[in-house]
Order: sequence, then C-alpha cells, then structure tokens
Amino acid sequence: MTFSKRSDVDPFIVMEVMKAAAARAAAGGDVLHMEVGQPGTPAPRLVREAAKAAIDSQVLGYSDALGLPALRESIAGHYRETYGVDVGAERIAVTTGSSGAFLLAFLALFDHGERIALGRPCYPAYRNILRALGIEVVDIPVGPDSRFQPTVAHLDAVEGPLKGLLVASPANPTGTMLELDDYRALSAACRARGMRLISDEIYHGITYERPAVTALAVDPSAIVVNSFSKYFSMTGWRVGWMVLPPDMVRPIERLAQSFYISVPVVSQWAALAAFSAREELEANVAAYARNRAVLLEALPKAGFDRLAPADGAFYIYADVSRHTNSATDFCKEMLAEIGVAATPGTDFDPVDGESYVRFSFAGAEPEIAEAARRIVGWPRLRTAGRG
Amino acid sequence: MTFSKRSDVDPFIVMEVMKAAAARAAAGGDVLHMEVGQPGTPAPRLVREAAKAAIDSQVLGYSDALGLPALRESIAGHYRETYGVDVGAERIAVTTGSSGAFLLAFLALFDHGERIALGRPCYPAYRNILRALGIEVVDIPVGPDSRFQPTVAHLDAVEGPLKGLLVASPANPTGTMLELDDYRALSAACRARGMRLISDEIYHGITYERPAVTALAVDPSAIVVNSFSKYFSMTGWRVGWMVLPPDMVRPIERLAQSFYISVPVVSQWAALAAFSAREELEANVAAYARNRAVLLEALPKAGFDRLAPADGAFYIYADVSRHTNSATDFCKEMLAEIGVAATPGTDFDPVDGESYVRFSFAGAEPEIAEAARRIVGWPRLRTAGRG
Repeated sequence: MTFSKRSDVDPFIVMEVMKAAAARAAAGGDVLHMEVGQPGTPAPRLVREAAKAAIDSQVLGYSDALGLPALRESIAGHYRETYGVDVGAERIAVTTGSSGAFLLAFLALFDHGERIALGRPCYPAYRNILRALGIEVVDIPVGPDSRFQPTVAHLDAVEGPLKGLLVASPANPTGTMLELDDYRALSAACRARGMRLISDEIYHGITYERPAVTALAVDPSAIVVNSFSKYFSMTGWRVGWMVLPPDMVRPIERLAQSFYISVPVVSQWAALAAFSAREELEANVAAYARNRAVLLEALPKAGFDRLAPADGAFYIYADVSRHTNSATDFCKEMLAEIGVAATPGTDFDPVDGESYVRFSFAGAEPEIAEAARRIVGWPRLRTAGRG
Repeated sequence: MTFSKRSDVDPFIVMEVMKAAAARAAAGGDVLHMEVGQPGTPAPRLVREAAKAAIDSQVLGYSDALGLPALRESIAGHYRETYGVDVGAERIAVTTGSSGAFLLAFLALFDHGERIALGRPCYPAYRNILRALGIEVVDIPVGPDSRFQPTVAHLDAVEGPLKGLLVASPANPTGTMLELDDYRALSAACRARGMRLISDEIYHGITYERPAVTALAVDPSAIVVNSFSKYFSMTGWRVGWMVLPPDMVRPIERLAQSFYISVPVVSQWAALAAFSAREELEANVAAYARNRAVLLEALPKAGFDRLAPADGAFYIYADVSRHTNSATDFCKEMLAEIGVAATPGTDFDPVDGESYVRFSFAGAEPEIAEAARRIVGWPRLRTAGRG
C-alpha cells in the first residue's frame, strides 16, 4: 500500500546536518553548532521553579482548549506593557508551540485549493503544513532589494486570487524585520483584496538595533503568532500563542478541541512565570548580540560580504554564491574540514537556496567565537574566486 | 471576511456540559462530575519525580521529531512485556497526545476526498479532524447487536471505495472491546480491500473482565495509537505514541517535523518513568472497577437496563430512550435537579445520540457513589414511562 500524496513533504535539511554533525561527534570529531534554530540555554530559573511547583500542587488534567485563563491574561498584559496595544485576554489562544498556532490558523482560514502567498526564503514548515492541508503556496521570491521581505509591489505582481499573506518579522532565516509602515502598506493591500494577514512574530524580543513592532499596532484584524520558544528559551516545552480577531476565537476553539484537546499543562504553568524572568532573558539576548557582533566582523573577512541585515532572531543568512554553486556541498565540506555545522539555504528556499547558508548564533559565546575563527582561517575560502 | 468551510466542525458538547456544571458550582450548587473523560488522579509519583529531575538537569530543547530514543525503547519494551509482541523501537513514534497521532496518521495515509469508515458512536474528534482534512467519514452505525463495534458484515454493506477503517478498543463512549478474532477478521477484510486498519488503543490497561488485546498481535501492518493520558493518568501532559509499519516511519517523521517539531520534552522525560509506576496505576484501576460495580448495580435500578458492556475504559453508555426523546434535555435536567453532570450521546453520535447518555466513572469513589444514589432516587425516572 502507498501513502498519501500530501505526505510527500520535504524533510528538514537541518536535521540531516544535525545527523552528520552527530556522526562526526560520535567518531571523536569536534563540532561547533551553527545549524540549530534554538537557544542553547534552558528555560529561565523562575519558569523551571513554576513548573516544579505546578507538578507538586496541581492534578494537571486538560486545560481549556484555548489555554489556562491566567496565562491568556498574562499574554494580554504583555501586549499592553511591551507594545502599548490593548488586546483582551479573550482574543488570546494559547497553542502547542507556534506549530499548533499555524495549523489552527491555516485550517480556520483556508479551504482546500485556496492560495496563500509567502516570501521565499522562509521557515520550511510553513509550506509543508500548507501543502499537506491542500492549500496552494504562492511563492514570492524576495531578496536583498526588499530586505528579504514581501512588499505590496510583490503582491501586485501575483496573478490569480489570493486568500492570505504570511509574513515573519524578525524572519527565519534572514533575521530581517518589517516596520510599522511596511505593516500598514501590506495590511491595506490585504484588506483591499479580501486577504488575511498572518504575522509570525516568534522572534520578538530577540532584536539588536531597534525593537520589533507587532502587526497588531496597525491592524487589529491581523492574526499574530508568537511563542515562548525563542526569546523565552522554552523550545521543548511546546507552548505558543495567537492573537485573534474576535470573530475568529470560536472557530479556533472548536478546532483546538478536536486537534489538540489541550496545550501541555505543565508548560502552561511554567510559561505563566516567563514574563517575570526578564533579567535572565535579557542576559540571553545580550549574549546573542555579542555573538552577532563577532560574526558580523568575521564573516566579511572570510569573503561573505553579502549578508542579510540581521535585525533580529539569531541567524545570519549569507550569500555564498561567490564560493560555491552548491550550499549543500559547501556545508558538508565546512563540517568535514573545520567542524562547523550550518544549514544550507535549500531548507528555506527550494529555488535559490543553493546560493545561501544560514549561520545560527544561538549557541554559547566561546563556541561561536571559535567557529568564527575557523571560518576566517578556512583555506577553502581563500582558494575560491571572490568575484 | 469569512472562515473556511472546513473550520465548521462541531464543538464538543461535553464542554457545554462542563460550562453548565461550572456555572452551577459558581452559583453555590454542588456538582457530581460524570461528564469528564479523564482520570481525577494526577500522574503517578514516580512520573512527577522524573519530570522534576529532568527540569533540574536538562536543557529541554527540541527532541527528535519521533521522540526521545530512550522513550521509544521503553514503549517497545512495553509491547514485549504486556502483549508478547515484538516491535522494534524504530517503529515507535512518540506523539503530542493521541491527538497528534491521529492527525499524523490521517495525513500520511489519506488524501483529500478519500473515504474512511468508522463506527458510530465514536470519539467526536475523529470525525472533526478527518473532515477538516477533507477526508470523507463513512459512518457505520453500530449498536448492541455487535457490542457497538464494526464488523466485516458492516464493511461489506458499505457502498463505494474505502481507504481505511478506524476502530477503538476499549471504545469511547461504550467501553466495548474487540477480541483477537474480531481483529483477525477486520484485518483480513481490510487487506482484501487495500484498506488501512487504524486501532485506537488509548484505554488499554483500564479493563475489568479480561485484558485488552492489541491489533498488532494479529496484524503487524496495523497502525496502533496509544497514549499516556488514560491508564498512565497523564492527560494534561500531552504525550502519546503510534506503532507504525516500518515503511510508514519516514513519512510520519517528515510530517511530525513540520507539524510539531517535537513532542513536549518535560512530558517525555516524565513518561519514561510511567512504566515503573504500575503499583499506583493498578490502584487507580481498582478504584475505577469499584466505581463501575456501583454503577452497574445502581443504573438498572433507576430504569437504565440497556447498558453497553463496559469491558474497559471508564464509561457506561446507557440507552435512555425509555426516559426521554432528548438526551440533551435529560442531561440538563439531571444537572439542574440532582447535580449530576453527564454527557448526552449527541457528542458521539449525531444521528442516534439523543437516545444515549455517557456516564464517566473516572471520578473519586465517594463522588460516584453519591451520584449513583441520587440517580436511583431521582423522581424524574419514576414518573417516566419504562416501556
């Protein structure tokens, strides 16, 4: 017997890189990890204490499908304090990571055969989830000229009907951000076309030059996805959230009942403490900032002089086309020759990805510094043509 | 703007019952809970200790998409010890509750427009998930004559092509089980028709007259879904698993990477201790058995003399058609008049559900005993015609 056509989604290439890195480590080689898309730090101390207290004091059965009421209140408070945006707790849906948020949002908004637009490169799960649900992905190729973000001009150039636009700011893999004017223009364009605007804001809080802005500041009807995984350093806990337009709450609640029943409850009690852990979390961001500075100095020395502006997140997306025609091979060689693991752009961009490598600087500072030294000293880069 | 057609899934009626019960409690009324589909007990002590130890000692980033290798090994060991069935750890996929298992299995196996059969009554999320994915649900109405389970004769009577059959044993809401001969017959019928057999075994371990059998004992190509939620008393932790045919592992892994990234990791470390907690878990089952005995004695006295055989799980599905034409109204009256919350059959059976009520006996013994007393003494039942 065969499997469904829709199950034929692409694997995450980063997983292959991680396997190769693990094999090298198992064989006694050293590996410097710049392939991972998650913090190397555990959840903050206050979060871990809250989790243990909940385990000691609660039955930990199912929560409401939309999450613990106290957590929904806390998240609403976060919007008031961080952005000065007033969203009622009743518009918050706690989700099983941002993964859960995307699935629920896509199901609620788009039917089989409908088309939604997203910038390419992007987080690979977007397109995999959409395709498995029978939703057509309309690629908008984006590059340095628009800071790797889609614009209204891009939307104008798309032929045929669109039901939605998905943007990310700060984006994975590029780290670039949308500003308030960008959101205003995209939001107006979506409204004029009867399209939904979904804004992935899971890297908010991890920014360097200026804070990230939320789509909600200019468009209360935007669907905003966020997560405790990145800034709050809680990837494995699997807890995220959505801010929904009021009329979307009930459809999402019904879908969540059937698709998830409940978000992991220990994780929800833990996340309740996350907004009190600013000191530890800001120290994490300061470390990312130092890693970023090291790389922004080192990578151009190694001949990587075309880097996406790393406004936020913990990635640098580097154009490697001067060094190779195959980022996949390039990453294999880099791991084999200098023990640096990074992700070829093909994970994020099936068309132009062989020209790019994503370097993650979420790791520990000594590891990133040593990786930078090895990249600068890698003879492979000196012998390659630099254009 | 509107929402997708596929988001128009039914809400869980049990949630409405729970809201009405909460409103009664908030107004100072007492409520005896027979509507909830989960244990009233927390996770076993060893599980809670393991979770706290993991929080203290692990970074708790993402796990492999298919779960912690040690947990996959433990689950494989569980099949050897409990059923004498040898399944390699590489065939185990740890999932975000059984909810995650169903979503992944349905996506991997069935394309938009394909048809799969399931017995009615059944767990309502099955049909909601399937429909939202564009998979057609073919109802097999089942009743007392087949112990509320589908048979080969039922399959023979279905017109048109089928790609799969989903069964549950012990079943929700009826508690009835399939035996080895039933699985043999259904498996052969599925094989002959090129259909997949999915066996929901999440209530295994909670049985009364005889142990439950796994579909894997007679059909290594069956897809088995199980969970730590029910017998292991870990609902809110959201961790379950699938046993997969070998060629299905990779498609499920790719889908899990995109749809979940990782199963909640604290919960996975916790679940590692679950198989060592037999003493506490068997005490839970002994309490369910006492609750069941109380109800099997009391309900016929109240005129509920047509009960589905409660082989397992913690439910009694009672035919209430002698007392009412509307189980929905009947449950409202029962809550209002004697403070007993139970779930009308409409949650499980959109056609014949108004003739049935599901009584859950997962609650504490004094509560179930008091509920039984009140039901027996409820004047409403004396004045109703008993046919």
